[in-house]
Amino acid sequence: MSDALKDKKVVIIGLGLIGGSIARALSARNIGGEIVGVGREQDVLQQAQEAGAITSWSTELSPACEDADLVILTVPSLTVHTVLETIKPTLPAQAVITDAASVKSAIVQAAKAVFGETPARFIPGHPIAGSEHSGFSASTADLFQGKKVILTPLEKSDTEAVELVTSLWEALGAEVLTMTVERHDEVLAATSHLPHLLAFSLVDTLSQQGESEEIFRYAAGGFRDFTRIASSDPQMWHDIFMTNGPATVKILDSYIEDLQRLRKALLSGDSEELMKTFKRANKSRARFLEFFEKGGNNSA
Amino acid sequence: MSDALKDKKVVIIGLGLIGGSIARALSARNIGGEIVGVGREQDVLQQAQEAGAITSWSTELSPACEDADLVILTVPSLTVHTVLETIKPTLPAQAVITDAASVKSAIVQAAKAVFGETPARFIPGHPIAGSEHSGFSASTADLFQGKKVILTPLEKSDTEAVELVTSLWEALGAEVLTMTVERHDEVLAATSHLPHLLAFSLVDTLSQQGESEEIFRYAAGGFRDFTRIASSDPQMWHDIFMTNGPATVKILDSYIEDLQRLRKALLSGDSEELMKTFKRANKSRARFLEFFEKGGNNSA
Repeated sequence: MSDALKDKKVVIIGLGLIGGSIARALSARNIGGEIVGVGREQDVLQQAQEAGAITSWSTELSPACEDADLVILTVPSLTVHTVLETIKPTLPAQAVITDAASVKSAIVQAAKAVFGETPARFIPGHPIAGSEHSGFSASTADLFQGKKVILTPLEKSDTEAVELVTSLWEALGAEVLTMTVERHDEVLAATSHLPHLLAFSLVDTLSQQGESEEIFRYAAGGFRDFTRIASSDPQMWHDIFMTNGPATVKILDSYIEDLQRLRKALLSGDSEELMKTFKRANKSRARFLEFFEKGGNNSA
Repeated sequence: MSDALKDKKVVIIGLGLIGGSIARALSARNIGGEIVGVGREQDVLQQAQEAGAITSWSTELSPACEDADLVILTVPSLTVHTVLETIKPTLPAQAVITDAASVKSAIVQAAKAVFGETPARFIPGHPIAGSEHSGFSASTADLFQGKKVILTPLEKSDTEAVELVTSLWEALGAEVLTMTVERHDEVLAATSHLPHLLAFSLVDTLSQQGESEEIFRYAAGGFRDFTRIASSDPQMWHDIFMTNGPATVKILDSYIEDLQRLRKALLSGDSEELMKTFKRANKSRARFLEFFEKGGNNSA
């Protein structure tokens, strides 16, 4: 592990599942000098300090960022703009900033709006890790172990800042990859945002049926797993869909088109079309699982 | 446990996940006199006998059913018709027949086609238990423990036969419920068939995207769980959709309508609509989970 964060002041803004897990992971691994937690709820901050996840805390954004070496934003996407505006006056010029939001274009736009252009030392990032549970109480020190983190540095990004953020995530056990902001938002729309939309929507469709209580009563383990992500935080997913609407709609349209094709096959009893689709999907899922289980999703 | 199956000859036709698990469960609990496994693959039948799941086996349908007290059909839905036709000549008049297929209307129709009308001692059934894995190798003695089994007796069904099939499933640890054939196929279309269709279709849609290998590489645990059921047996699901097309299309149409509403909200950035839907879905999922975890799905 690199010593890049030795004796540094790390400020984590937002101590939910992600921010809390970063704090716990840093502390557990004894990385960083001071770890400052910033949030709105005193009891959560106190809980984080008692858990040994942070060394100090504040409910005031601006003073907390004075002398910061690294600021990690783990607040809901739509509040990033306000947070950046608030910390701008006290943020040291040499401080590196990163975030963990699921939609990178919105974060880059927010930074640009606040700073005129996205600061060279602002390196957008996204850990592909999470849970349907949210809040500090769901945070764990090993949330990022073996997971992927995607960084989306811009053309003018500072190389040293990219290296610092990379070494942060690597120190927490993650594999760091880079791609463009646009590619990130497109890939995540397909693999994460669309599945969440479909799961929320299915549970909602069924709950609107007559006797929905009875319907849910007969649902089994397959339904439970398929809809697990519909237990995710509504506010967080609201923010994701408010900011990644176009990319999500693009892949949603492909999906609805494919569903319509299957619908036609169901109505006409098109045995061949159904079999072809299910076999192809079954094979693709096996390929995905191979990546996932053999560490293709966990290591290089 | 009742002694209803004491010294009886139980014939299980088809030793896949369900048939194999029934055989294993009966043997493990020492229920029934003789347990005869019937299938096409000798090595599987031998394996089942070596595992102590069956007392004898045959690859011949008709002779195996002579003197049978209970015949359990656990073959793919679309082969039930042929199987019934083949066993009809040797099937004792007093034998009780049941099955485990996911679509009850198709089974009732097959029985009616073969026997003129559905025999009074043919009690259609469906254990709400399974796995994305298939075959005898995936079978376990506790597959039905704490699960629901739905029986769909008809108006002329023999009460004694219903009781025998009920005691069979209860002896294997399941809770037995009854409903009409139509209601069963409608409820299962919503809670099981539609989710499977959506999962198969999502994996297929993504695998048709350019650079799909790369897309799968960034998919995480949420995607894995959402698509688990897309690893299910294509042949089995082909048969289910070939026989429950209309009920599936009905709920699929409600679903696509709801997706279109969300699509509109995504495009127009309708914050309120998104938030309302996600909150409602989140709440409904919590209600489902309560049923599921507190045994609402497992016991009365």
